[in-house]
Amino acid sequence: MSADRSTPEQAAEVPAGVRAAVLGSGAWGTTFATVLADAGCHVALWGRDEAVARSVTTERRNEKYLPGVELPVMTGTTDAAEALAGAQLVVVAIPSQVARATLTGLAHLVEPGAVVVSLMKGVELTTDKRMSQVVSEALGVPAERVAVVSGPNLALEIATRQPTATVVASVSEETARFVATACSNAYFRPYTNDDVVGVELCGAVKNIIALAVGMAQGRGFGWNTTATLITRGLVEITRLGLALGAEAETFSGLAGMGDLVATCASPLSRNHTLGKHIGQGLTLDEAIAATGGTAEGVKSSQSVLELAGKHGVEMPITAGVVGVLSGALPLSDLASTLLSRPQKSEGVY
Amino acid sequence: MSADRSTPEQAAEVPAGVRAAVLGSGAWGTTFATVLADAGCHVALWGRDEAVARSVTTERRNEKYLPGVELPVMTGTTDAAEALAGAQLVVVAIPSQVARATLTGLAHLVEPGAVVVSLMKGVELTTDKRMSQVVSEALGVPAERVAVVSGPNLALEIATRQPTATVVASVSEETARFVATACSNAYFRPYTNDDVVGVELCGAVKNIIALAVGMAQGRGFGWNTTATLITRGLVEITRLGLALGAEAETFSGLAGMGDLVATCASPLSRNHTLGKHIGQGLTLDEAIAATGGTAEGVKSSQSVLELAGKHGVEMPITAGVVGVLSGALPLSDLASTLLSRPQKSEGVY
Repeated sequence: MSADRSTPEQAAEVPAGVRAAVLGSGAWGTTFATVLADAGCHVALWGRDEAVARSVTTERRNEKYLPGVELPVMTGTTDAAEALAGAQLVVVAIPSQVARATLTGLAHLVEPGAVVVSLMKGVELTTDKRMSQVVSEALGVPAERVAVVSGPNLALEIATRQPTATVVASVSEETARFVATACSNAYFRPYTNDDVVGVELCGAVKNIIALAVGMAQGRGFGWNTTATLITRGLVEITRLGLALGAEAETFSGLAGMGDLVATCASPLSRNHTLGKHIGQGLTLDEAIAATGGTAEGVKSSQSVLELAGKHGVEMPITAGVVGVLSGALPLSDLASTLLSRPQKSEGVY
Repeated sequence: MSADRSTPEQAAEVPAGVRAAVLGSGAWGTTFATVLADAGCHVALWGRDEAVARSVTTERRNEKYLPGVELPVMTGTTDAAEALAGAQLVVVAIPSQVARATLTGLAHLVEPGAVVVSLMKGVELTTDKRMSQVVSEALGVPAERVAVVSGPNLALEIATRQPTATVVASVSEETARFVATACSNAYFRPYTNDDVVGVELCGAVKNIIALAVGMAQGRGFGWNTTATLITRGLVEITRLGLALGAEAETFSGLAGMGDLVATCASPLSRNHTLGKHIGQGLTLDEAIAATGGTAEGVKSSQSVLELAGKHGVEMPITAGVVGVLSGALPLSDLASTLLSRPQKSEGVY
C-alpha cells in the first residue's frame, strides 16, 4: 500500500478573479461557491429557487441549506445564461440522477474552452456511468477539461471556514492544477491527482458504506462495528476500483479513506442518518421522509452492485445494503451476515 | 495496497476448557477474561485490588472498570501463584510502563510451555521495545510462544457482547491459532496474522493519533479535520512500520485502520478524551486529572518519535503531539502546522 499520489497545488497559473459559475444552490454547491469566492473568484451561483438566489445576492445567506453561515460576495441567479456567460470555470453540484437532463439543456450556454468540475457523487442509474462521464457527455466537453473534487468535505464544516484538505482529479494535469489554484484559500487545501476513476468511485461507494454504518448504529452497535464496517468497506471499494483500472493509492488517501471516515463517522451525513432510521426499524419510505429526502447511497447502491457483478467483484457490504433496502434481507441478518461470512483472508482484493 | 493478510481462526486445536490466567483486572483485562470465559476457558483474573477480585468471583461484577456489565463465571484473585498454576494461556493486561518489573517478579510462576498473550499497547520508555518483546524478556518465554491481540476493540462494547473482530498475531502460526481458537466465541471473531511488529506498532501509535484528534476536536474542529488526521495518521504509522520491517497490508486491516478509526472516532477512548481536554485549554497535568489518569499515548509518544528519528522516518502528527505535550508547540499552531506543512505528495511512505 502507498497512499494517494496527490500533490499539493502549485503556484497559481490562474489570473486573479477567474469567473466561475456554480450550478446548484444546495449545501455543497453553495459551499463550493463560498470556497471559490473566498479564493478570489467572481462567482455566480445558479439554482431553481428564486428566494435562495435573491437571498444569496442581497443578504449573503442561504438559510435553507447553510443556516447561520455568512456567505462572501457572489451573485445568486435563476438565469443559467447569466450565470454561465463568460465563465471560465463551471462547477456542477446538482442531484446526480437529474444531471444529464439538466446539463443537456444548458450545454449551449457553456463558453468554449471552459473547464468543468463535477462535485457530484454517485453513478447514473440508467447507464452505470460516473458523474464526470455524464458531465462530459451532456455538456459536450472533452474529459481533458473535466475535473472532479472529492475528499473529507462535509459541507457545513467548510462553509464555517474550518480548515479542510481535498483532492482535485482530472486526466489532464493542467486542468487539475487550474481548478486547484482557483479554489485554494486559507482554509481549503486541494491536492491534485490524475486518478479520476478512483476518486469518483470512492465518492460513490462511500455513501453506501455510510448507509451500512447508519443501519448498524441504528440497531445499537457501537464504534467497534463502525470501524470494522469502514475498514472492510474500504477493502471492497478498493477491490472494485482495481477492477475498473483505478490506482490503489487513491483509496488510502483523502478522497478514499478520508472521505469514507468523515462520511461514516459524522452524524452530519445524510446517508448515515437515513441508514440509522432504517436501523431503528423504519421502512425505506418512512426513513426517507424522516431524513427529509432520499440519500445518494440509496440511489446508487443497485448500480454499484451491478457494476461489481459485471466485473466479478464481491462487495458483501454493498450487497447487504441493497438487500435490506429492497426488503430481501431482514435487517436483523445484516450484521451477522457481515461478521460471520466465511472469508479466506481479511483483505484480499 | 492490499489489506491485512489475516486469516480467520481455523477449527479448534484447543481442548475444551483450556485454563487461562489473565493478569490485570482493569477494563481490557476483565473484558478479555470475559471473552475467554464465554469461549469456554476456565479463567482466573489476577489483579492487585482485593475488592475487585472478590466482586469478580462472588458477584460476577467489576463495577470499578466495567460498570453495569455482568461477567461470566471466573475466579478473581490477588494471588498470582493461584492464578498462574496450571494455566496454559497467560494473558497480560497491565500498564505498559510497569509491565517489565511486574512480570519479572511473576516469571517463576508461569508454567513451562504456556502461551503468553500481550494485550498491552505502547512502547517501553527506557528501551523503545514493543510490549511483546518486554513480555518475552521479562517472563523468559520465547517469541514463538508469544502472541498479541489488537483490533477495533473498545473494551466496554465487547464486554456488553457486541460483535467484534480482532487480530491475533504471532511469529508462530501454531501459537496464533491456539490463541485465536481459545478466544473465539459468538461475538468475538479473531483473525490470525504473522506480522507482530506491524500489529504492535499500530496499537502503540494509534493512541498518539487519537490524542491529536482529541486536541483538534477540543479546539472545535469537526469531522473533516478528524478524518484528515486519521488518514494522514495511518500514513505515518505505515511509514514507520515499513522502516521497521512490518508488512504494509497490516496497516490497512483491522489492527491498523480498524483500530485507529475506533480509537479516534469513539468518545470512549481515554487518549481521545485526554487530548480533548488539552484542546480545550487545560495543561497536561490538569488534563490527566480531568481524565482520571494518564493515557497510553502520552507515555509512548516520545519513544515513538525517537524510534522514528533513529530510522529517519518523518512523523509530523506525532511530532506535533509531542511538541504540544511538552509545551514547546503552542496548541494554536498544531492544526495549522499539520494542514499547511509543505508536502510533495499526500502519502509517500
